[in-house]
Amino acid sequence: MLPRLSGATRIHLIVGDPIDQAKSPAGLTRVFAERGADAVCIPMQVPAPDFDAFLAAAKRVQNIDGIVITVPHKFSATRHCETLSARAHKLAAVNVMRRETDGRWSGDMTDGIALVAALRARGFEPKGRRALVVGAGGAGSAVALALAEAGASLAISEVDPARRDGLRKRLADVAVGSGDPRGFDLVVNASPMGMAPGDPLPVDVARLDAGAFVADLVTKPAVTPLLDAARRRGSPVLTGEGMFEPQAGILADFLLFSSGRGPGPAR
Amino acid sequence: MLPRLSGATRIHLIVGDPIDQAKSPAGLTRVFAERGADAVCIPMQVPAPDFDAFLAAAKRVQNIDGIVITVPHKFSATRHCETLSARAHKLAAVNVMRRETDGRWSGDMTDGIALVAALRARGFEPKGRRALVVGAGGAGSAVALALAEAGASLAISEVDPARRDGLRKRLADVAVGSGDPRGFDLVVNASPMGMAPGDPLPVDVARLDAGAFVADLVTKPAVTPLLDAARRRGSPVLTGEGMFEPQAGILADFLLFSSGRGPGPAR
Repeated sequence: MLPRLSGATRIHLIVGDPIDQAKSPAGLTRVFAERGADAVCIPMQVPAPDFDAFLAAAKRVQNIDGIVITVPHKFSATRHCETLSARAHKLAAVNVMRRETDGRWSGDMTDGIALVAALRARGFEPKGRRALVVGAGGAGSAVALALAEAGASLAISEVDPARRDGLRKRLADVAVGSGDPRGFDLVVNASPMGMAPGDPLPVDVARLDAGAFVADLVTKPAVTPLLDAARRRGSPVLTGEGMFEPQAGILADFLLFSSGRGPGPAR
Repeated sequence: MLPRLSGATRIHLIVGDPIDQAKSPAGLTRVFAERGADAVCIPMQVPAPDFDAFLAAAKRVQNIDGIVITVPHKFSATRHCETLSARAHKLAAVNVMRRETDGRWSGDMTDGIALVAALRARGFEPKGRRALVVGAGGAGSAVALALAEAGASLAISEVDPARRDGLRKRLADVAVGSGDPRGFDLVVNASPMGMAPGDPLPVDVARLDAGAFVADLVTKPAVTPLLDAARRRGSPVLTGEGMFEPQAGILADFLLFSSGRGPGPAR
């Protein structure tokens, strides 16, 4: 439910392909309303070959204040930002852009801090804990960086050694991990494993430490075989959807900053 | 109030500059909901120099089904339509575009039929009546064509003779009118006169026939000096906002046709 929609309503887009699964049109628009902003988040299904022309045009629309970026555009969106947050620069990816008061567009990457916020909301403080991240693609990199910045000690398990070592170079003090979760307080699956029936588990669940926290970024199925197996062992778990619960508030913090309604710049 | 907004909601835009005064985001979205369509109309403030690039990009967005066009883009939008309705072709202007099932975009111009519908809703049937239209610009042309198609006999009053005769060539049997309203059952002001304080009246109200209907396309002020003077003489009047009341339903008819929710093609 939206409180209002008029010619004066400020517009934020979420751009991706596909887009019908996106949670931001409902979730972010609700947060805008809760914060007293006359603003909506509108889905735009833009195929990759059309992305650059679309974004160039959208940035010039005078009542568009922000653009949320989702798959497959998170990397290509960086070239449409005149400034990047430190973490967006490090990850070479953005998931949100806003028009600054000087007219320039800046980008941030909040996927990782959304995971950290979701973990904290469930009582798991990453600081000083040992975390194993499986997958060093876009999502895995964002999660690894946020966990490192939150003070966790990290290991990365990734089937592609070049990709793994690329991420290890960008982050300091990251160990090489494997499918063996022994000795870790937190296991995060940021690989696609678990999306397709019959996928192997990303880690050997039988070797999970007692009480180790298990998070999975896969959203379909909502409860992956990894999470199901971890639950049976008594581990606390975080689903992909649960990870995105804090995301709407974090995106609104960023998007409403220019209008003076947000709490501050990119954290 | 909107019943829903999600990643699967179908998007229609209204493109203009300025845009904050536009009624379609609220009005058209309400009609979509009344007709059971999960669709919204979103305002886009696009300056004239950016219009062509924006429209080219917007037409390729996969979940955009329709685009309402307002000032100053009604003429330039025609070149973005692969097909035009007969009246849009005759007027060289469109106020609404939709993606057809074959992927092509078609355009229509409904401003004139909106006026006719508003007149009929107030009990004024144009067929066989004598109408004086003041102003032969985009709005005046659309109104004149719709009144002629509804069976009225027309005279056009326009300060620019070339513009007046250009419209008379496109429509058959249109007389040259003046500021003298004697002998007319309907007077429509489609000129800007009445927007600025101190503007002369578009016609000599003292010479209005008793009971002649007076309509004014100017929306600010809502009641123009022309309408105020006509009211004092006991004439029924139609304000610019009143003229647009049927517009949302007419636009929805056109926009929802492709999705099988509308009653038929351009009328």
